[in-house]
Amino acid sequence: MRYTIRFWRELLKFNLLQKDTETQARLGQMHLGHGVVDTPCFMPVGTRASVKTLSQHDLKELGAQIILGNTYHLMLRPGEELVKKAGGLHDFMSWDGNILTDSGGFQVFSLSDIRKVREDGVEFASHIDGRRIFLGPKEAMAIQAALGSDIAMIFDECLSYPSTYEMTCESMERSLKWAALCAKYREPESSQAVFGIVQGGTHKDLREKSTEGLLELDFDGYAIGGLSVGEPSDLLWEYSYFTAGLLPEEKPRYLMGVGTPEDLLRCIEGGVDMFDCVMPTRNGRNGTALTHRGKRVLRNAQYKEDFGPVDPECGCKVCQTYTRSYIRHLFNVNEILGLHLLSYHNVAFYLNVMAKVRESIKKGNFSQFKRDFLVQYTEHSDQEEK
Amino acid sequence: MRYTIRFWRELLKFNLLQKDTETQARLGQMHLGHGVVDTPCFMPVGTRASVKTLSQHDLKELGAQIILGNTYHLMLRPGEELVKKAGGLHDFMSWDGNILTDSGGFQVFSLSDIRKVREDGVEFASHIDGRRIFLGPKEAMAIQAALGSDIAMIFDECLSYPSTYEMTCESMERSLKWAALCAKYREPESSQAVFGIVQGGTHKDLREKSTEGLLELDFDGYAIGGLSVGEPSDLLWEYSYFTAGLLPEEKPRYLMGVGTPEDLLRCIEGGVDMFDCVMPTRNGRNGTALTHRGKRVLRNAQYKEDFGPVDPECGCKVCQTYTRSYIRHLFNVNEILGLHLLSYHNVAFYLNVMAKVRESIKKGNFSQFKRDFLVQYTEHSDQEEK
Repeated sequence: MRYTIRFWRELLKFNLLQKDTETQARLGQMHLGHGVVDTPCFMPVGTRASVKTLSQHDLKELGAQIILGNTYHLMLRPGEELVKKAGGLHDFMSWDGNILTDSGGFQVFSLSDIRKVREDGVEFASHIDGRRIFLGPKEAMAIQAALGSDIAMIFDECLSYPSTYEMTCESMERSLKWAALCAKYREPESSQAVFGIVQGGTHKDLREKSTEGLLELDFDGYAIGGLSVGEPSDLLWEYSYFTAGLLPEEKPRYLMGVGTPEDLLRCIEGGVDMFDCVMPTRNGRNGTALTHRGKRVLRNAQYKEDFGPVDPECGCKVCQTYTRSYIRHLFNVNEILGLHLLSYHNVAFYLNVMAKVRESIKKGNFSQFKRDFLVQYTEHSDQEEK
Repeated sequence: MRYTIRFWRELLKFNLLQKDTETQARLGQMHLGHGVVDTPCFMPVGTRASVKTLSQHDLKELGAQIILGNTYHLMLRPGEELVKKAGGLHDFMSWDGNILTDSGGFQVFSLSDIRKVREDGVEFASHIDGRRIFLGPKEAMAIQAALGSDIAMIFDECLSYPSTYEMTCESMERSLKWAALCAKYREPESSQAVFGIVQGGTHKDLREKSTEGLLELDFDGYAIGGLSVGEPSDLLWEYSYFTAGLLPEEKPRYLMGVGTPEDLLRCIEGGVDMFDCVMPTRNGRNGTALTHRGKRVLRNAQYKEDFGPVDPECGCKVCQTYTRSYIRHLFNVNEILGLHLLSYHNVAFYLNVMAKVRESIKKGNFSQFKRDFLVQYTEHSDQEEK
């Protein structure tokens, strides 16, 4: 069963605006249920219907066009039924930009110790109260339909690195079967786009097989899964580059759970359009600023009397207003405002870098931009003080 | 030695604009180093150079004209020397509104277990690392001068309730001596206003004696201290009313560390102009909203599916945007955004009530406003769930 003609198809349009001449980098625009998303894009992570420490006003001010929500966390608390009653995730959290929800697969395999993989899904114990829960393709699609996200992800199995060829093959085949079920159980009259997820670990033939199977199901976009699961950076870059090359040009490509600013630039070079990562907010809450000159561990003593901005090359509200010294003080005395200010700046930094990437592709100097950026970013980073 | 002619006098002007006909309530304007403050006013508490969970942009948006900083906390971390290097507390925290600093007296007597009261101040152990520190009138004035607040408070001793007549008398006499030293040691060429603090506990003759002594020192304003230290509400109201009546009409009157919305209204009725309290932010961090219909303990299960605003009568950004259900969820999953949103609303509520108070004094219907407000506020409050 194929879903080629449906109302919602009108709602996900991906316009490939420009291709870089030197690399595989692409400039595009996704038209989704809640507005346009310029690609390449970074999606701040709002696991439990909140991008940590940031308000929805902040996200709007930062220019975020799409954020991510986690099905696994939301199904546990507050539960998809409540979200549905609120009118869906957008209304529940008062966010009128776009939302992508993952399917919960990754969390089931990474957060839950006790689990039993069955033909039609996974039985696992909630990491909150140990309650037994069953999640499979059918359930994941139903929950995401209830959440009402603009992009839903298929339910798949995600292995950690390293995994043997046999394990990876078996898992990838299972994920393909689940992909077919997701295609079958997606809401027929919904405006929700659904993305397939390529698995296959660090085995190129398995990546090819996975891609082939998914393409037959004709999803609205394709994600590169099974990376950022413990492998070294060069493998991450190699396999996302390789996988992106297998995917159809006319559909958006999303590299899940990635990554550092360097990862983003290298994978954009390989043809990836979408990213998500907790790095900017997690670093923000740890007292680390991500800047054009690399990481700044603001808790370090060297910033005690540094009355300069967090990132002199950043135009965000935090960098225009507060000093490193003040933010260091906030972390030193455990004031919540410190977590907020650095999270705000770090997300601004990521979104800003992506805007510059798009600009550089447009102008035809992406490679140059990438080289210059990485020299500045990687040469100046702080070390953590012991 | 009296300080009657000084440059800084030009910088604190208090204009008494209107007096209520039925009560002692007053409408006024203070002109300070960082702009006008309309009175009666509420000052959000920024103990460690941060009003908890709120950014300085938030405070500006909320219309705060003056905030409070704590000398005791700031002298310990980051230390007044660092703040001075930053250009003073305003520059350090990037706040261009007014700041009042307390003198540290209250914290020395309430936070530090080990202390030794001497003629010229108090030796105490830091509550952070046990380090021995000496703080007296001279030190408190010097530190506040370094912080550069717009209003400094004199260093005094603050007893808890109940205290015997003898203890209170002795302590009040000591505070008066310290007050004279503060007057002596205040910066002669500074734009910093200095307020005296009336002590005397719940003993009217001691309150009178304390006031007399302070008036001789001709401070720029007068605070009512030694209340909100454990006494029942009716005594708080009675003694702030009584003390306010002793103070000169042409200078601002500040009731320290008070209080609930009801306290504010009752003490405004008695002629108080300025208040500070951690209640709005502390309640916000505990999941309790202060609203026109009383306290709402949003953690309670009754709000799970309540998709209405926190306070339907409030026009703040939070009430215009988010639901009780969503904020309850944020507290339920320990998302920091919940603390922020409720703190924001609660401060908005306090500032909003004060704006309405000023409006009612102007229109000559303060008593009516107070009655109506208290009926609505006290009759509907939630109880905490066990």
